[in-house]
Amino acid sequence: MPLDPKVADRLKRDAQGLVPAVVQQYDTGEVLMMAWMDDEALHRTLTTGRATYWSRSRRDYWVKGETSGNVQFVRHAALDCDGDTILLKVDQTGGACHTGDRTCFDADVLEVSR
Amino acid sequence: MPLDPKVADRLKRDAQGLVPAVVQQYDTGEVLMMAWMDDEALHRTLTTGRATYWSRSRRDYWVKGETSGNVQFVRHAALDCDGDTILLKVDQTGGACHTGDRTCFDADVLEVSR
Repeated sequence: MPLDPKVADRLKRDAQGLVPAVVQQYDTGEVLMMAWMDDEALHRTLTTGRATYWSRSRRDYWVKGETSGNVQFVRHAALDCDGDTILLKVDQTGGACHTGDRTCFDADVLEVSR
Repeated sequence: MPLDPKVADRLKRDAQGLVPAVVQQYDTGEVLMMAWMDDEALHRTLTTGRATYWSRSRRDYWVKGETSGNVQFVRHAALDCDGDTILLKVDQTGGACHTGDRTCFDADVLEVSR
């Protein structure tokens, strides 16, 4: 069974058929990572409760934590006002980043003038 | 003056020269919106402390809140581990969404089986 047509109708995909997914820890609010989904990845995510993405480099589906054990249990999912971004609130086991960091945004802080 | 070359060297842009920016309210952790930046938009954001994006539809720079008054004061900026996503933590005046909602992810919740 494919993605619910009512959801598929609202989804705005890029030229590669993908939509960015912002992934946030549901209780602390930390933004953990950003990844990409096609219709099938979103379908699997919504129906299994396990965050599943499309790997643009490997050209394959990827259940987060399948190899690392650092799985993401999905607590909440939403589309934005334009239907072109997904927000997942998850419960992240261990580090979200492949570097071992808790989030993918921990290591490279940029200086802001204000 | 363009974007700091040390930052520009780490940035991985898409085919249109753009990088997605995830925008989060700095104190509550709410994910407010997602928008796009090129090098110049990131440069303006980091040097002015006001979130500035590239509008793909209008093909122009866009200082958030310039027309609506709902500005974003940037408190923190980071690149992710791959340099292909930006995270901004901002102080958002009023609603972040053009619909008037506080965030762009408030209106369209998706059902998750688990």
